[in-house]
Amino acid sequence: MKIIVALSGGMDSTTLLAAAVTSGHEVIPVSIKYGSKHNDLERASAGYVAEYYKLIFAWRTLDLSKVFESFDSDLLRSGAAIPEGHYHEESMRRTVVPFRNGIIISSLAGLAESLEAKEVWIGIHAGDHYIYLDCRPEFYSAMKDAVLRGTDRKVYLRSPFLYATKAKILAYGLGKSRTIDLPEPSASVPYHLTRTCYTDNPVACGKCGACQERLESFKEVGVEDHLEYQSRELLPKKG
Amino acid sequence: MKIIVALSGGMDSTTLLAAAVTSGHEVIPVSIKYGSKHNDLERASAGYVAEYYKLIFAWRTLDLSKVFESFDSDLLRSGAAIPEGHYHEESMRRTVVPFRNGIIISSLAGLAESLEAKEVWIGIHAGDHYIYLDCRPEFYSAMKDAVLRGTDRKVYLRSPFLYATKAKILAYGLGKSRTIDLPEPSASVPYHLTRTCYTDNPVACGKCGACQERLESFKEVGVEDHLEYQSRELLPKKG
Repeated sequence: MKIIVALSGGMDSTTLLAAAVTSGHEVIPVSIKYGSKHNDLERASAGYVAEYYKLIFAWRTLDLSKVFESFDSDLLRSGAAIPEGHYHEESMRRTVVPFRNGIIISSLAGLAESLEAKEVWIGIHAGDHYIYLDCRPEFYSAMKDAVLRGTDRKVYLRSPFLYATKAKILAYGLGKSRTIDLPEPSASVPYHLTRTCYTDNPVACGKCGACQERLESFKEVGVEDHLEYQSRELLPKKG
Repeated sequence: MKIIVALSGGMDSTTLLAAAVTSGHEVIPVSIKYGSKHNDLERASAGYVAEYYKLIFAWRTLDLSKVFESFDSDLLRSGAAIPEGHYHEESMRRTVVPFRNGIIISSLAGLAESLEAKEVWIGIHAGDHYIYLDCRPEFYSAMKDAVLRGTDRKVYLRSPFLYATKAKILAYGLGKSRTIDLPEPSASVPYHLTRTCYTDNPVACGKCGACQERLESFKEVGVEDHLEYQSRELLPKKG
């Protein structure tokens, strides 16, 4: 079966790609250009990951940057600086890109129809739910219906991490947990190739919500994160 | 209330815009660039219509052409010639653009959030249902849920023509029918400014599914279509 896997170049989508490859599917990894500050850096990581899994020639980029050009969000290049702190803090709301996943999923559904792919896999996970409405299960189930009903080949949307935390995904990717309903990756996922930080600095800042969540997940699983950081300190949680 | 109206420059979206203007809402007409053969010509019409309704400065274009670049459809510039005949014929299936309305609606939902608009109006109608899965009510109701659940301000998707034929929309726009649940346009809709034909010829071909449906609807309502055509002949329906 031919499937599309949304590959940002972050930990979650890389783990999902590893699972897809293990499943024996014909995998088309697709990265999205949408104009976030860290977009080029994470796409570079997506390229390393695709290369790692011998999928560099199947790897595609879908350019949605024009769509988001006039959108209002600090995650985008047009917005203010990335705030420091945890996802649950008010300041992080400024990093919401309006209906981003709706737009991404729709575009991948259309691409799937064009490429005759049967499924679209996406690494939305539980840590995303709090401030990102378009990562919540109730959004996702409606979107899944819309894609099924609106496509000729009944494209199926899968997001196996919807209820998993980042730590659980990491543990799964390292072969330390079997609680996720997917075939276990045949080897540890190359997390050193991934990119998580929201800033445009090549060295991860360690202070944005994305870096903090990553650092916490490695701590929780009890393994070392072989990534370079400007700071590895876990910030106190406010509120 | 601020609302977005998807304005292709065709008859249906122009009628919808007229209704929105009559409703007294603050209207933002948005046209979509997506690379169809008739896209530039219909966008020109959208501009004439926006100008007619004194909305030329509010009018925006959302450029989705990169998204559709690798999609497979004869409606797009990358595809083969537009077939002649009626929508229900097999050949017209080649004009389906995979999940087009899902992508357009998602993008407009994100734009609505960014512009603080409360509703997105779209002129999907009953004539579109047969071959275009992403125009059917069951797709539309799932998409409506996805937009509501995935947006902070609970953006509401309206498509008042979902069950109306093109002839019914035309009759409504000319003040000859009150069966559509919208305030009647205060004056006849300027259909002479609109563009329907799927080809890239400035003069409507009269032979594609879009032209045939338009010609039929004017005949059914019993009014003259003041548009120039290469041919006004109604083709026999096969099958």
